[in-house]
Amino acid sequence: MPWEAFSGVERAVAVIRPFKFVSREFQQEPTVVDVGGVKVGGGHFAPIAGPCAVENRDQLFTSAEAVAKAGATILRGDAFKPRTSPYSFQGHGEAGLKMLAEARDEFGLPFVAEVLDPRDVALVCSYADLIRVGTRNMANFTLLSELGRQSKPVMLKRGFTATIEEWLNAAEYIYKEGNHDVILCERGIRTFETATRNTLDIAAVPVVKQVSHLPIIVDPSHSGGQRSLVGPLALAGVAAGADGFMVDVHHDPESALVDGPQAILPEEFATLMDDVRAVTQALGSVS
Amino acid sequence: MPWEAFSGVERAVAVIRPFKFVSREFQQEPTVVDVGGVKVGGGHFAPIAGPCAVENRDQLFTSAEAVAKAGATILRGDAFKPRTSPYSFQGHGEAGLKMLAEARDEFGLPFVAEVLDPRDVALVCSYADLIRVGTRNMANFTLLSELGRQSKPVMLKRGFTATIEEWLNAAEYIYKEGNHDVILCERGIRTFETATRNTLDIAAVPVVKQVSHLPIIVDPSHSGGQRSLVGPLALAGVAAGADGFMVDVHHDPESALVDGPQAILPEEFATLMDDVRAVTQALGSVS
Amino acid sequence: MPWEAFSGVERAVAVIRPFKFVSREFQQEPTVVDVGGVKVGGGHFAPIAGPCAVENRDQLFTSAEAVAKAGATILRGDAFKPRTSPYSFQGHGEAGLKMLAEARDEFGLPFVAEVLDPRDVALVCSYADLIRVGTRNMANFTLLSELGRQSKPVMLKRGFTATIEEWLNAAEYIYKEGNHDVILCERGIRTFETATRNTLDIAAVPVVKQVSHLPIIVDPSHSGGQRSLVGPLALAGVAAGADGFMVDVHHDPESALVDGPQAILPEEFATLMDDVRAVTQALGSVS
Amino acid sequence: MPWEAFSGVERAVAVIRPFKFVSREFQQEPTVVDVGGVKVGGGHFAPIAGPCAVENRDQLFTSAEAVAKAGATILRGDAFKPRTSPYSFQGHGEAGLKMLAEARDEFGLPFVAEVLDPRDVALVCSYADLIRVGTRNMANFTLLSELGRQSKPVMLKRGFTATIEEWLNAAEYIYKEGNHDVILCERGIRTFETATRNTLDIAAVPVVKQVSHLPIIVDPSHSGGQRSLVGPLALAGVAAGADGFMVDVHHDPESALVDGPQAILPEEFATLMDDVRAVTQALGSVS
Repeated sequence: MPWEAFSGVERAVAVIRPFKFVSREFQQEPTVVDVGGVKVGGGHFAPIAGPCAVENRDQLFTSAEAVAKAGATILRGDAFKPRTSPYSFQGHGEAGLKMLAEARDEFGLPFVAEVLDPRDVALVCSYADLIRVGTRNMANFTLLSELGRQSKPVMLKRGFTATIEEWLNAAEYIYKEGNHDVILCERGIRTFETATRNTLDIAAVPVVKQVSHLPIIVDPSHSGGQRSLVGPLALAGVAAGADGFMVDVHHDPESALVDGPQAILPEEFATLMDDVRAVTQALGSVS
Repeated sequence: MPWEAFSGVERAVAVIRPFKFVSREFQQEPTVVDVGGVKVGGGHFAPIAGPCAVENRDQLFTSAEAVAKAGATILRGDAFKPRTSPYSFQGHGEAGLKMLAEARDEFGLPFVAEVLDPRDVALVCSYADLIRVGTRNMANFTLLSELGRQSKPVMLKRGFTATIEEWLNAAEYIYKEGNHDVILCERGIRTFETATRNTLDIAAVPVVKQVSHLPIIVDPSHSGGQRSLVGPLALAGVAAGADGFMVDVHHDPESALVDGPQAILPEEFATLMDDVRAVTQALGSVS
Repeated sequence: MPWEAFSGVERAVAVIRPFKFVSREFQQEPTVVDVGGVKVGGGHFAPIAGPCAVENRDQLFTSAEAVAKAGATILRGDAFKPRTSPYSFQGHGEAGLKMLAEARDEFGLPFVAEVLDPRDVALVCSYADLIRVGTRNMANFTLLSELGRQSKPVMLKRGFTATIEEWLNAAEYIYKEGNHDVILCERGIRTFETATRNTLDIAAVPVVKQVSHLPIIVDPSHSGGQRSLVGPLALAGVAAGADGFMVDVHHDPESALVDGPQAILPEEFATLMDDVRAVTQALGSVS
Repeated sequence: MPWEAFSGVERAVAVIRPFKFVSREFQQEPTVVDVGGVKVGGGHFAPIAGPCAVENRDQLFTSAEAVAKAGATILRGDAFKPRTSPYSFQGHGEAGLKMLAEARDEFGLPFVAEVLDPRDVALVCSYADLIRVGTRNMANFTLLSELGRQSKPVMLKRGFTATIEEWLNAAEYIYKEGNHDVILCERGIRTFETATRNTLDIAAVPVVKQVSHLPIIVDPSHSGGQRSLVGPLALAGVAAGADGFMVDVHHDPESALVDGPQAILPEEFATLMDDVRAVTQALGSVS
């Protein structure tokens, strides 16, 4: 048998029909997504920050106040958590969403929250300003289609084992149903390296900017998995051309119920924002 | 900073609480799952075969008749297909399930079919004898929990990017809700190798047999992605101790709507079954 | 920019010119390699066994006697060890080769040993019957060329991060210099799975058999990294069509200087040989 | 068997003794490497540029003149090329080194060149200012030890399938022999993503800065494999804290004998240098 019979079998078998609507060929100008009044993409840079999970009102409000003050424009915080083990904390559900809505009113930051179940889409959309599809659900096509049929913008995290092509096809599932407000989020891919939680695929930023008109941000917290890496990875994302980033901020990471080791302190977030402003200005002035 | 701070970060961050009920420590004797009267596990070997997707009555019945005659004990065929592109064939839905039920009655083979959406669980369970969770949904925890609360047995395919530990935790999601009839299916993982569709992790068979009491089978069709590899991979699975295998059989692979290149012909399946019987007898007589 | 610009960039940049001499198109009939009088390939099955490293005369002779008695036809044992850390045991060098030569004379088994440095090729060839290129040196093209210019047969292990195509090109480096006696050895690839040392790519066996005329064996010890997996993986290799296997056998694994956890005991090797004979006979009689 | 028996088997088997001399614990202050009068590390940023391979005098001098003018401080260019296929261009050998030495004299740039064979170490060291170990030779321990016993500084590229821990142990092989002038180069790792040649592991930059005192640079050309990605990846490296970068520059990439698709034009390199200066100044002024 000739070698060619085995060359690129995955592509040959699972022939992927190309995405259309999310490509640069379909739309030349960059999409600008409106998240509760905050623009993302097309030159509008979005720092998104807050706790990984909503644990209680105090924890949420402490973090929200700090990130608002330091310059974040969108708040993050989750009420439904997908956990590898059925015995881990799964989130507060609707009660968590209510607290997030209160934090929005208090600090003037629209918020993003994850949805896990197609049956919860209406509920999460009734509270959140931006609906997140997590990495484990990127290929949950029934969830994607459901989100394509409602009107809130969607943040689509890359599956940690998805190729860029599969990710853009997942965005197409949402887009073709009529919802054009999709923000992509690179959050690291699974590789053989174990020194970091996942490997931030920084090249995905310029690749996506070149082939798609959708905004793309990076998540340095979940990719690095380590507090000391959050700053360098966020800045790398900015320098590579990302339209924003999303970081976990917690005032007491040691006691966090979810992903404490990767959360930065409010004061570290403020320092990071200074660096981010310096780099965005530097690149803005030369290119 | 000492190197130890970076050693095994993924595990450290995403601390996985150990599965309990699916472990060998919880139950020493192997679980035997009853699929419409056919036993799987604990010495009962299950050859599962049929078309990847139900395309029409003729295609399904031709394949079902052939695999029944050659010795398959369970029929496969899907009515809901998860596709990377929203523009690919997505399956016939309930009409497909009806045809599968007719084939069961005609040829005396219980059948397995995939479910994609938690809202379709009741529908698929009303027709199929064994409900399959596909590789893209292994970490769809809402779907897993839903399946844990109904009474049909479940085949849980390994996520093509999931570790064995994550896979056993996914089984735990089903088991802890009360459904103890879970069959695991190794179907290949995503690696850097492109000569095959995915890399069949053959070692997963003995690892799972040693740490869990659940039956495990292999899928040589979706892992290899190439007709000529199906036989050798199926036999490797048998020799490694699997409780069965599942293969795509199509009488006219060139015209198949889904995954044609990996489907074997009915006569190739018959030859494979001869080899399988020889190996199972050989190993049965010495060990 | 169109998506196609990014599709398969690695192949596009690093254009690999196809191997010629090692392909089935160049030579239809399987190559049979003579290792000190023992034939490998073309229906001749080779069980290779012995300690990972030569530690001392007693350890080597105890292991060699046991594997000879159980039916191994080639002895393994190393005098030069490539170690990730410069502070680990690096082997006994020429003294180790001398002990291996004595064991050959005593038990009538030709032996295989690894060479690491092109400057040691003549030395190792003056003692060993089969020269091994280890996984870390598969792309050490100067070493490969040197081995192509001498007359002892070569066992070429797959780089644990090499594609099958790169591996066959590495064999071509040896073959084109005039040495046609090359045995390929699949020993597992690096993937995200951490339950096993590496992932045995069992599909590489039928792929290589189909596209090349060279013999191929598997190494269940270094891929699984766990004593309890050696038997199932060796049998999987046999069933998939391998021309042999190579396993670490040590009479006291707890005290082994290198890779103890994956070495099997002499009595486990004897049991494995019984199973292997049963499977080879079963498949020989039907196919 | 309990699950713990399979947890982290690779590490357990291949126990890696920790590196010492290259750790931050051994030496707190950053190492500054002198490359023919140009300092690298400890606040000294090194832009390295030039053609991938030396093809002829004209090609080399055109590229060298352009990169010198735009601000590169070290010239790159190779005379020995490791190629996957034995039938690809393998470099001009000593004649190429002579041309590089002439270019150094003409444009005042010290140069870096790769060595493949321990027997060529003396030859390459007699010409080059910085000796490079390529990605395929990172675990060629005999080559590493040889380089540790001579006096020219060494650039150690990361194996495209090596963990950061294995890479630092490879540096230790050089360092412990007495050569303390080692520059690390992150050049991308092999993952499942095919849109880029390899995946630049940008997190390796801050990880290495935190655990080691050695300088680290990035190679955006060989990781991305695509001209349009070189700029964004180089800037990402700078923002993440790298001590320099190395890029392929060719005045006529279409005709390049090696890796043309990833080479940038001299004018693109000049633009990149403007951006790099802006970002280094921005970060220098705030942190």
